[in-house]
Amino acid sequence: MEVIRSNFKDNLSKVCEAIEEADFLAIDGEFSGISDGPSVSALTNGFDTPEERYQKLKKHSMDFLLFQFGLCTFKYDHTEEKYIMKSFNFYIFPKPFNRSSPDVKFVCQSSSIDFLANQGFDFNKVFRNGIPYLNQEEERQLREQYDEKRSQANGAGSLSYISPNTTKCPVTIPEDQKKFIEKVVEQIEELLKNEENESLELEPCTGSVSEFKERYIVISKVDDEERKRREQQKQAKEQEELNDAVGFSRVVHAIANSGKLVIGHNMLLDVMHTIHQFYCPLPDNLVKLTLLCFNILNSYFVSRLLDTKLMASTQPFKEIINNTSLAELEKRLKEIPFSPPKVESAEGFPSYDTSSEQLHEAGYDAYITGLCFISMANFLGSFLSPPKNHVSARSKLIEPFFNKLFLMRVMDIPYLNLEGPDLQPKRDHVLHVTFPKEWKTSDLYQLFSAFGNIQVSWIDDTSAFVSLSQPEQVQIAVNTSRYAESYRIQTYAEYVEKKHEEKQAKRKCTEDSWKEMERKRLKTQCTPYVSQSRYYCVNSFTGTSTVGKRSMSPIQEETGSDDMEEGEDPEYNQTDSCAEPLPDSKKRAKKFKKIKKEQVPAGSFTSSSNEIFEVPETW
Amino acid sequence: MEVIRSNFKDNLSKVCEAIEEADFLAIDGEFSGISDGPSVSALTNGFDTPEERYQKLKKHSMDFLLFQFGLCTFKYDHTEEKYIMKSFNFYIFPKPFNRSSPDVKFVCQSSSIDFLANQGFDFNKVFRNGIPYLNQEEERQLREQYDEKRSQANGAGSLSYISPNTTKCPVTIPEDQKKFIEKVVEQIEELLKNEENESLELEPCTGSVSEFKERYIVISKVDDEERKRREQQKQAKEQEELNDAVGFSRVVHAIANSGKLVIGHNMLLDVMHTIHQFYCPLPDNLVKLTLLCFNILNSYFVSRLLDTKLMASTQPFKEIINNTSLAELEKRLKEIPFSPPKVESAEGFPSYDTSSEQLHEAGYDAYITGLCFISMANFLGSFLSPPKNHVSARSKLIEPFFNKLFLMRVMDIPYLNLEGPDLQPKRDHVLHVTFPKEWKTSDLYQLFSAFGNIQVSWIDDTSAFVSLSQPEQVQIAVNTSRYAESYRIQTYAEYVEKKHEEKQAKRKCTEDSWKEMERKRLKTQCTPYVSQSRYYCVNSFTGTSTVGKRSMSPIQEETGSDDMEEGEDPEYNQTDSCAEPLPDSKKRAKKFKKIKKEQVPAGSFTSSSNEIFEVPETW
Repeated sequence: MEVIRSNFKDNLSKVCEAIEEADFLAIDGEFSGISDGPSVSALTNGFDTPEERYQKLKKHSMDFLLFQFGLCTFKYDHTEEKYIMKSFNFYIFPKPFNRSSPDVKFVCQSSSIDFLANQGFDFNKVFRNGIPYLNQEEERQLREQYDEKRSQANGAGSLSYISPNTTKCPVTIPEDQKKFIEKVVEQIEELLKNEENESLELEPCTGSVSEFKERYIVISKVDDEERKRREQQKQAKEQEELNDAVGFSRVVHAIANSGKLVIGHNMLLDVMHTIHQFYCPLPDNLVKLTLLCFNILNSYFVSRLLDTKLMASTQPFKEIINNTSLAELEKRLKEIPFSPPKVESAEGFPSYDTSSEQLHEAGYDAYITGLCFISMANFLGSFLSPPKNHVSARSKLIEPFFNKLFLMRVMDIPYLNLEGPDLQPKRDHVLHVTFPKEWKTSDLYQLFSAFGNIQVSWIDDTSAFVSLSQPEQVQIAVNTSRYAESYRIQTYAEYVEKKHEEKQAKRKCTEDSWKEMERKRLKTQCTPYVSQSRYYCVNSFTGTSTVGKRSMSPIQEETGSDDMEEGEDPEYNQTDSCAEPLPDSKKRAKKFKKIKKEQVPAGSFTSSSNEIFEVPETW
Repeated sequence: MEVIRSNFKDNLSKVCEAIEEADFLAIDGEFSGISDGPSVSALTNGFDTPEERYQKLKKHSMDFLLFQFGLCTFKYDHTEEKYIMKSFNFYIFPKPFNRSSPDVKFVCQSSSIDFLANQGFDFNKVFRNGIPYLNQEEERQLREQYDEKRSQANGAGSLSYISPNTTKCPVTIPEDQKKFIEKVVEQIEELLKNEENESLELEPCTGSVSEFKERYIVISKVDDEERKRREQQKQAKEQEELNDAVGFSRVVHAIANSGKLVIGHNMLLDVMHTIHQFYCPLPDNLVKLTLLCFNILNSYFVSRLLDTKLMASTQPFKEIINNTSLAELEKRLKEIPFSPPKVESAEGFPSYDTSSEQLHEAGYDAYITGLCFISMANFLGSFLSPPKNHVSARSKLIEPFFNKLFLMRVMDIPYLNLEGPDLQPKRDHVLHVTFPKEWKTSDLYQLFSAFGNIQVSWIDDTSAFVSLSQPEQVQIAVNTSRYAESYRIQTYAEYVEKKHEEKQAKRKCTEDSWKEMERKRLKTQCTPYVSQSRYYCVNSFTGTSTVGKRSMSPIQEETGSDDMEEGEDPEYNQTDSCAEPLPDSKKRAKKFKKIKKEQVPAGSFTSSSNEIFEVPETW
């Protein structure tokens, strides 16, 4: 269902109802751009830490507009053994609400716009009929404006001659207008004296040249009761205006407050944009983001995010799924050993035809994402004894995937963890190299020609990470470079150490934030659901090979793009790395305790298995 | 005529022909926004100097996209005594040309987008079918890329195994692909040996999972002649690709190179955007802008810009034209004492109906601007003896209006002069006030309540210009504020002095630029046209009152908007000021000599009057 400004109000209750009744929700966003800064390859360095990636996206991607939001709700019908889905495709545009409302500026990236144009994206619909929105601060300010106006109208007195939001002040009446004003004063005095007349229409006072429609002031005499009635009418109207201005943000609030599982595909940018556009500016660092997410998502229940791209890249899927781009994933999941999910659109909702539909319409992408989730979740059920055909969104089987957002093009860190400190793989085969800005990749290949296959991850014009195939080679490379003049080589550990030193002051603040996080955690345990701390690390997966700490899988080469520019996907080879927290992060990790997991309500899940699937901390 | 990407190439010669044959051109641009920074009121302070205004627009307005460009060419038919016009409405979009071409990011301002959306602006046409463009530097780079590619293909040798623009390098062939590669080598050797076979189709080498259309390499044996023929073909194709990429910039070059009079309405932003988008980043200061304009516009002839908003705001028009917004101006100029111009659209070109057409379509706005110019120019002819009905674009009567761009909402400086130093009115009734950021306009009225009517021009949150009605009050105000703690008052002269001190270093550079300007001027005098220095300052206008140095006119309150946001037009009252260059600017002015004016070709103009109309330096 297409939702635009003109039909938003009529359909809002339908949207909220769909959210409330759903077993899970799938979302997707379309943006006016991806990266406003360095090239995508610099934006997504293969050795970014989650914190670094977050900082880059925050800095270079938040000025774009999320202008289409797809929401697809899925509700399982146990009798018919199928899902009933309702799909909504919202067009979003920050149409200024009034003169004093925020005049949002947003950036467009030509390549993204061109890409969407080629998909038939309807920009006219966005700009002419997009649903407005306010973030929380803007909503608060607008509410205050109304309150102030009301208190002024209720006779705050001395200031009430100033129209709100103008810089007008009392002026001396110009000579040529004195006669007009005097006449008005006379007329009003007449009205007050005369008991018969109830109202008075003043002459229009716009100049004769004007082409405006004639507007004039009507002065009415009213009693107290009538006055109150009119005031209440006005207040109701103002409340409606306020609701209209908050607009699409109400849908986002409904999603957050529902406590439902929210599915996305490669959803980090979607989550960041949603917070940034409809809640508040993104916090300084990942720890604070986590805090904020729990603030938003935990407001009523414990909410969870699940990224289907991460799920598809993880055991037991990664061995049987070659390409995790949304389009390819959807196709793959229709084939053996998976089964296409049974999903029907609800009555009155249009259905999508997956064989012909265009990707990159947010509503459709959300729908496909939901299908992928169902197929993968159900596949997990086949490992139970006895096997299950249907695995619900409340099943423990999928809990290991909660709140872990896929990290695009990071070689050895699979996800950004919203429930703990950054994963810190041991990068003992990685070098940090600085060199003159004239150097190209071929110069680096030249330099390291003695070491066999290497991988280059550009940081900027004059530096890059170079990963060697053997950690033992690292010290040799550093030693041989000792007297080099044009370039400098250091180990990854040395590089990190230096960066840490620079950020000493900053870290103090971060630790404090973790403490606050802990405090928050203790507080939220008082929700209606009984909580229990658990930690998924046992690797008792049956049917495929055991996943060890050192097991790796390459980042897939993709034909489609999941919100990053197409075709720029570098072809990473298998890398050798090992996830052991660095000394410093160990301390942080120690302080951190797992956020509680929601316990499954009795009866909805019968398996006795407890800790089955592991999401590893490295690829 | 609507010109989009798909019909641009077919119509380019038509566009160039129209420019070449025209007597004058009218242009207009539509942008994705106006001001990306402070509020419009801060962007257009009533006491901005031209330099300050330029800096503000440069800083806060250039990140927007000029995405519709209107061009209307007017050619006078002496036999029929009417103009023949050709109107073009170009949709512009920086569609990335290839992987390595610039990926332009531009800002959209919701209020501007919303305004255009309400006018029925077709965003889909812009984004799906806008004509691309390159600025001069980008064009140069692309040309270099092609040259490099060519020289590589011509056997530069050792590097030719590297595909251009990739970071690929020779790699060790993986074990599982060795067989495939060996087979290819064998096949090629076979082809070279065998005289019968002319070409060889290699097997596709994409993996089996791929959904790509099958692509494969064909190896052909060719002799030297065939090789050359193919190379020439390729070069011609590359040249065409290059032309396509330069795209709309070719139209702008044609306009600049034509040397024709270019008309615009409130055209400062149009001129700035045109330079910024299709030539090069805007220069640091106004002097350098002037230099650049003369560089661009003078490349073949002496070109001239004329701003109809400035013209309509100046004698002899300002007394009889109340509202200089484009829509109102067009209406006014149909009435006595003006006469509607006789203009017909050329064969094959659609005509506009001014009574029903939508404003803010760039092609239409350009057309209307041209109509306004013709009416006003012809009106000037009525003051000649004998009077003339038709005043051509080459007439001396309009020369006083050349290269002076209207300054929106500046109280006492009418225009930005592209032919000389900033106008510097004496602002001896103006105070500069700093105060706590909580202050509102009413606090300032309060503070100056003893001085009668004042005018407040906000600079930022904590400072404003306040103009008093009497210059004599200025010192009193400064004196009484001496011991104030929360605010500070200084005279305008003191304020300027302090700013000058801060910019001491910078100014040196500006003076050097003026010297270069002078050098340039001497050089351009070698053009085919005989030049003559003249200076319009005699005020011998007949028929209306004499315009003295102290005569003022209020800035009109407008119903329409000329590229600034609607309705925010402050209602300026008549101000009292006097244009006398400040001590410092006198020195600069001394150094500066008038840029030559093009002498009118013999026979095209018969009036004996020489210096009739003056464009004053202050309102």
